[in-house]
Amino acid sequence: MFQLLRDGRPRTRADLAAVTGQARSTVAARIDLLMAAGLIAPAGEATSTGGRPPATFAFAPSARVVLGVDLGATHARLAVTDLASTILAQRELPLLITDGPDLVLDRVAETGAELLREAGRSTSELAGVGVGLPGPVEHATGKPNNPPIMPGWDNADVPAILGDRFHAPVLVDNDVNIMALGEHRTAWPGVADLLFVKVATGIGAGIIADGALRRGAQGSAGDIGHVAVPGVTDVVCRCGNIGCLEAIASGLAVANKLEGAKTPADVVALVRSGDVAASQAVRQAGRDIGAVLATSVSLLNPSMIVIGGILADAGEHIVAGIREVVYQRSLPLATQHLRIVTARTGTQAGVLGASAMAVDQALSSEAVDRLVA
Amino acid sequence: MFQLLRDGRPRTRADLAAVTGQARSTVAARIDLLMAAGLIAPAGEATSTGGRPPATFAFAPSARVVLGVDLGATHARLAVTDLASTILAQRELPLLITDGPDLVLDRVAETGAELLREAGRSTSELAGVGVGLPGPVEHATGKPNNPPIMPGWDNADVPAILGDRFHAPVLVDNDVNIMALGEHRTAWPGVADLLFVKVATGIGAGIIADGALRRGAQGSAGDIGHVAVPGVTDVVCRCGNIGCLEAIASGLAVANKLEGAKTPADVVALVRSGDVAASQAVRQAGRDIGAVLATSVSLLNPSMIVIGGILADAGEHIVAGIREVVYQRSLPLATQHLRIVTARTGTQAGVLGASAMAVDQALSSEAVDRLVA
Repeated sequence: MFQLLRDGRPRTRADLAAVTGQARSTVAARIDLLMAAGLIAPAGEATSTGGRPPATFAFAPSARVVLGVDLGATHARLAVTDLASTILAQRELPLLITDGPDLVLDRVAETGAELLREAGRSTSELAGVGVGLPGPVEHATGKPNNPPIMPGWDNADVPAILGDRFHAPVLVDNDVNIMALGEHRTAWPGVADLLFVKVATGIGAGIIADGALRRGAQGSAGDIGHVAVPGVTDVVCRCGNIGCLEAIASGLAVANKLEGAKTPADVVALVRSGDVAASQAVRQAGRDIGAVLATSVSLLNPSMIVIGGILADAGEHIVAGIREVVYQRSLPLATQHLRIVTARTGTQAGVLGASAMAVDQALSSEAVDRLVA
Repeated sequence: MFQLLRDGRPRTRADLAAVTGQARSTVAARIDLLMAAGLIAPAGEATSTGGRPPATFAFAPSARVVLGVDLGATHARLAVTDLASTILAQRELPLLITDGPDLVLDRVAETGAELLREAGRSTSELAGVGVGLPGPVEHATGKPNNPPIMPGWDNADVPAILGDRFHAPVLVDNDVNIMALGEHRTAWPGVADLLFVKVATGIGAGIIADGALRRGAQGSAGDIGHVAVPGVTDVVCRCGNIGCLEAIASGLAVANKLEGAKTPADVVALVRSGDVAASQAVRQAGRDIGAVLATSVSLLNPSMIVIGGILADAGEHIVAGIREVVYQRSLPLATQHLRIVTARTGTQAGVLGASAMAVDQALSSEAVDRLVA
């Protein structure tokens, strides 16, 4: 019954009895429990067809809060949000992921506690924590799995460490998946099949199919950085294979090709300053990414590809290169209604997605049953 | 409540009231309605803890039947099954898809009616029809979309034509998707993330993710026949692009490379007779398919790849070639627990999947609500 109300629309007891097939007395008792838990609230009166107008009830997203955490290689973003993922307090801070889980998660716990105070909420109101990490994560256990840029983090029990500090359920996923979730929920909630691609230091994707994030068997779905680019036979990747997308078209690979650029941010600055070589290099990276996305489009048939990550800030060059190859190389049926756009949530995609992941868990049928039992 | 019972396990009224949260009186009334509709039946008594032992109820798969139809280029397979997709009567017949929808669907309707009689069931007991076609289908409308080997079928209203004959809901999908569904439900129901690949005259895939078939936005997901094979730059496909998988590694492409082979069946016969050139060609086709599947594995992270279609009958050569490249080229995290096997349902994959598709529709919550209303 509560899942119905999550859309925010007010409903009467009679509405809810009709839709769920439950007895009026069962519905009334459940409403009382959900009200006591603060998850729903009175929402005025419905129009009456005669007699006293019936009371309506609606989801109360401010009932509790969650903490969204987006950890990158050299920074972190944290946000306390309500149960509709509306941001109540947020902070960005410099932080080295190479400092290892103890130091980093200690900073996360401290900053999270500060943000809770800033939002005027207590730890007891925290319904969950969502965390994104810059490397492969086994979503079921929340443990990083051989993450290449995170020394000391392999198999670290992130849910246990943060759970001890916050006394709330902790869910962990890789940064691209939470960005995909954040962008999908915030900007394109009605798009059932969407592919989110992050182009930054590395390259990765998050898959939304039939409205939900699909993580695959080990949680590594969307890991396209080491997919072979068709037609490229002369670039050796650090992984040992030939022609990997990341070795050819990542922000770092593009920076290495340009004089005066060391990081993806330098590449963006060069493009913005009107540097022709930089614009051409970014467009070519777009074409190479497009070659892999053409395969992804044939395989997944999304109706939308969203390009995020810092290289998406280099204007239309990267999207133009991607479009060029995807529309040339994919099947007409799959590209007929395909849109390819840049992300709308920008640097907030990660925390919004981490928040959404924690909210979904906190408001799952099982969690709500426990809460009102 | 009925959805719970679909697993076949007997339950008491008290079990069902506890799980659904519905009043005992609501549960009892619903059980009476489902019994009257024949969808559930008494299943003996539960162990008593004192007093009269309570009655249990279970799903009755023989309540109604569905018709599964698998149409190929030159043949058709039809089966009448019960609601657990157990085959009650089946037939294979020669049939040219190029005869067009009127002639072909007329044959289907006649044969379906004969099979119903053979199974001792009437048209009024038919809960639905599932149809697989050898070309792209818009699943939502059931209409073929520019199918290359099906002249006269573009936009044909298959559900309307067969619906007129059977007076039951008709669902249509492409042949690879129904094969994926049939193989998944029959042989690997516990595998949540599975990629089914058909290698026959053409090449296509069906995607099972989080336990369900994923069709994408236009229903073309899995269409990997015209994906570019990495490293191949010298083969022009009939579609006009270069290096398409189908132009290099389909059963037809392999037959074209071999003396004495005109069809994929000829290739299989040569391999079985011990022809070394044929075995080598099939193994190389496996490697080329493996190059595209390596990308698919990185993207989808399935725990199982199932190879079906007639070339899977050429023994281990094709799977060996696929394994060789997938294990070399995909990420370790994604291949750690990956199994690559040949299909178990063989030529019955299609009708079993078509039956499962029709059953899912017939037993959906909405359909059952209508039935017992």
